[in-house]
Amino acid sequence: MFAGVHSGVKQNPEKEDLTLVTCPDGATTGGVYTTNLVRAAPVDFDRSRTPSGDIRAAVVNSGNANACTGERGERDAAEMARLTVEACGLPKDSALVMSTGIIGEHLPMTKIASGIQTAAGQLAEGEDAFMAAARGIITTDKDTKTASREFEIGGATIRLAGMAKGAGMIGPKMATMLGVLVTDAAVSAENAQTALAAAVQETFNCISVEGHTSTNDTVLLMCSGKAAETELAGEDLATFTEGLTDVCLELARAIPADGEGATHLITVEVAGCATRDDAFVIAKTIADSPLVKTAVTGNDPNWGRIVSAAGYAGVDFDPKQANLRINGFELYQRGAPVEFDVEAASNSMRENPETHVLLTLGEGDASVRFYTSDLTIEYIHINADYHT
Amino acid sequence: MFAGVHSGVKQNPEKEDLTLVTCPDGATTGGVYTTNLVRAAPVDFDRSRTPSGDIRAAVVNSGNANACTGERGERDAAEMARLTVEACGLPKDSALVMSTGIIGEHLPMTKIASGIQTAAGQLAEGEDAFMAAARGIITTDKDTKTASREFEIGGATIRLAGMAKGAGMIGPKMATMLGVLVTDAAVSAENAQTALAAAVQETFNCISVEGHTSTNDTVLLMCSGKAAETELAGEDLATFTEGLTDVCLELARAIPADGEGATHLITVEVAGCATRDDAFVIAKTIADSPLVKTAVTGNDPNWGRIVSAAGYAGVDFDPKQANLRINGFELYQRGAPVEFDVEAASNSMRENPETHVLLTLGEGDASVRFYTSDLTIEYIHINADYHT
Repeated sequence: MFAGVHSGVKQNPEKEDLTLVTCPDGATTGGVYTTNLVRAAPVDFDRSRTPSGDIRAAVVNSGNANACTGERGERDAAEMARLTVEACGLPKDSALVMSTGIIGEHLPMTKIASGIQTAAGQLAEGEDAFMAAARGIITTDKDTKTASREFEIGGATIRLAGMAKGAGMIGPKMATMLGVLVTDAAVSAENAQTALAAAVQETFNCISVEGHTSTNDTVLLMCSGKAAETELAGEDLATFTEGLTDVCLELARAIPADGEGATHLITVEVAGCATRDDAFVIAKTIADSPLVKTAVTGNDPNWGRIVSAAGYAGVDFDPKQANLRINGFELYQRGAPVEFDVEAASNSMRENPETHVLLTLGEGDASVRFYTSDLTIEYIHINADYHT
Repeated sequence: MFAGVHSGVKQNPEKEDLTLVTCPDGATTGGVYTTNLVRAAPVDFDRSRTPSGDIRAAVVNSGNANACTGERGERDAAEMARLTVEACGLPKDSALVMSTGIIGEHLPMTKIASGIQTAAGQLAEGEDAFMAAARGIITTDKDTKTASREFEIGGATIRLAGMAKGAGMIGPKMATMLGVLVTDAAVSAENAQTALAAAVQETFNCISVEGHTSTNDTVLLMCSGKAAETELAGEDLATFTEGLTDVCLELARAIPADGEGATHLITVEVAGCATRDDAFVIAKTIADSPLVKTAVTGNDPNWGRIVSAAGYAGVDFDPKQANLRINGFELYQRGAPVEFDVEAASNSMRENPETHVLLTLGEGDASVRFYTSDLTIEYIHINADYHT
């Protein structure tokens, strides 16, 4: 069940800022968290409770990250969880907590407490409640980010739905942002954790906006088991993980596509590497270069910036075997420039909200796809002119 | 001797774009170069010739980087060196070459050849020639970057002068840009190399603009030995290295201060680390975060962005021992927020072209100072709107 209400953490009374997601009969739950050493209190709280065989609720507030708030922040996170189980009539210690927003300020607990009370009274199934919950977790996002699928596994129809938030302070090395996925699949807690970690590795960990890893990143997977009597295993579990990855990818791509001020979603595909790690490091280095991002902003097929970014990624490769395409245009072949129609390539970048960069090396068969935003004047406005 | 002329690589006829620096009687010479795998042809050319006991000239063109230009680029770099020794009447193989500017286009060798001829005819000592040479190496720099010192070592007066360029594509891991230092000190080729490498480590390798390591970074130190009969050794050599580091620091700081579009030079000082490497990695991670840079652009003492950047640097530390000051204002102490005068802190950032960030950890005694630019709308204009 879902609810999203305005508690008063955000000033605008029309914006939801507190979300409840519940599985009243219990859910096996896995969680993946930021690897930042400077972790928000709710991250440490949830880490200590997952994977779990019996989680009933997740409470999320937006507008305040409860990060860098010392021991009082730890007490506030625990109190949010306690207020949630109390308001929803759930067993002790069965709630998880997420927060996102400003760093370094204490949570307004009176507002949070009354918001939890209101949300508990509005918990419902269905699209309207789900979308209110999705609105309650966003901050600078232009819109909600949701994805859902139904698929047949082992004779049962399984439903899987997820919501995510994130537009700034997005850098991988963890689950980069907040996300909650709920399913009626029957999955053991251990397998829920493994499936989520595998899905995140290829999706939420392959995105960035500006490469700044947040203090609060958390993705939760809650599996109610209502779809079947027996837990998924073997090939069925693999099919479930595949579907989960698919939903996570849709949510993950929505984040850099909605990156603060972004005008292009950039897919950086690096192929022909010795290992997947090599491909990942090169792709992330290209994606995080402000010179590459601004070239895409300006619809400039500036392959020199891309190739030179690959060159300082710290991965060994032979530049004379490197090839580069942007939106299918071949720009660089075996370490030397290729004549190409600059205007046509630039137009394809201008007309397409997605730019596809394909760098192929000659070191092996491993590859990766990484997703990022371009860097615009609007990003500077958002992050320099408005205090956060 | 110095000369700077317009050869035609840059379109504006009032801009110098070709520089000669000569020590006609020979100079022991060390060089430090980019660690980018994708290296420009002149970088590979110079690497093969340094350290050297007998370099007579360095030729530099701006406006074209001769990078990613394949075998033709290698031939063009060698030809630039050959034309230089021919025009100046110097021994074969005694010239070094530097290029900076657009990546991926071939050098206009007819213009370069005639520029070298003109510059050779204008070689002179003195301020005017030195400044013309300093103008000939710059690209998007707002102005020239020069520094000089005289100091007494071992009874002799030693003169040391340097010029540098750089405003964009500035990331450390090497000598980050072009720089030429000339001195009349008597220093062996091996010691020139060692002294330069030591100076660069604390200066040019401690700066960034956007963290994108260039393909062309080169710093050369040419020592004519005219100041004394015997080569510096022992304490005298240490004093020389100290003076050299001082000159390099002045040049290095001038680069992020003139970073593309920059309105603040940001000094990120990280202290209390177990090792200098730890301090360096944390300082560079803070300096390269677009969220930290834009906070400084907006004169926002946003310590949460700084502390969270330290947290994802990949260096282990205890956040509960972390303290942060900006321009002397204490904002964060032992992992928790401190009440401070936000307006006064913001005003001190607004009124001062330099912002000083001091992060102190509790892991040891090692520290580092790293210098970077803030990130402004003008940076986006320069790199998105104008094709390079």
